[in-house]
Amino acid sequence: MSASIDDRSRELLEAENFAHVATITRDGTPHVAVAWIDVDGDVVQVNSAEGRDWPANLRRDPRVTIVVANHENPYEYVTIKGEAIEITPEGADQHIDSLAKKYLDKDEYPFRVEDEVRLKIRVRPDKVRRWGG
Amino acid sequence: MSASIDDRSRELLEAENFAHVATITRDGTPHVAVAWIDVDGDVVQVNSAEGRDWPANLRRDPRVTIVVANHENPYEYVTIKGEAIEITPEGADQHIDSLAKKYLDKDEYPFRVEDEVRLKIRVRPDKVRRWGG
Repeated sequence: MSASIDDRSRELLEAENFAHVATITRDGTPHVAVAWIDVDGDVVQVNSAEGRDWPANLRRDPRVTIVVANHENPYEYVTIKGEAIEITPEGADQHIDSLAKKYLDKDEYPFRVEDEVRLKIRVRPDKVRRWGG
Repeated sequence: MSASIDDRSRELLEAENFAHVATITRDGTPHVAVAWIDVDGDVVQVNSAEGRDWPANLRRDPRVTIVVANHENPYEYVTIKGEAIEITPEGADQHIDSLAKKYLDKDEYPFRVEDEVRLKIRVRPDKVRRWGG
């Protein structure tokens, strides 16, 4: 039941706005990560690293809610409910570099940690809802 | 296992920064609301209205995670894991007015809806963690 992303929501996702990514911890409590985000067609993409809590949460339960607020007007935001359909190291380094380009205007991600395995997380939106604005 | 709020986290909560409030929906998926927030001693307070999803979620499962990012520097944020210890209409109108003062510099909440029952939600932080900055 994949949902398409309306034009204004796509603008918010393509701008340098941060995502709040909510997942479910093993004990059933919600977890929220703050992350960079981008869009690939009708899939949204975030990036994390092996060993962190939230990719582990998504491997156990792929259901995720992502909120992206307009930094210029935080009363406007888009809420995406969906599922992580892919969590992969493949292409994850290139992906974090492209996010560094988007958010920091740097060709390479400057916070790389040695031996860290980055993960590209692709989320299929099932419900997209826009608020305010 | 109430946690105290360190000085810098308190500053972030007292500034006009928005909260992302994550709760658990009946079907086990995460829900995220964007909300105003303030602090009362070592309790954080948000405000919603009867009939909305997330106070209903909190009545069923009081476990909540709140993230407040520094609007001036979104790489700095505080994550609060805790429990809703009170969800009450008592004082909720005064509370939304005081939040309107904080965020909009208005003496009265300007978005009041007729017959809407506001709810003050008090959250006991059990774990406070600050990132970035």
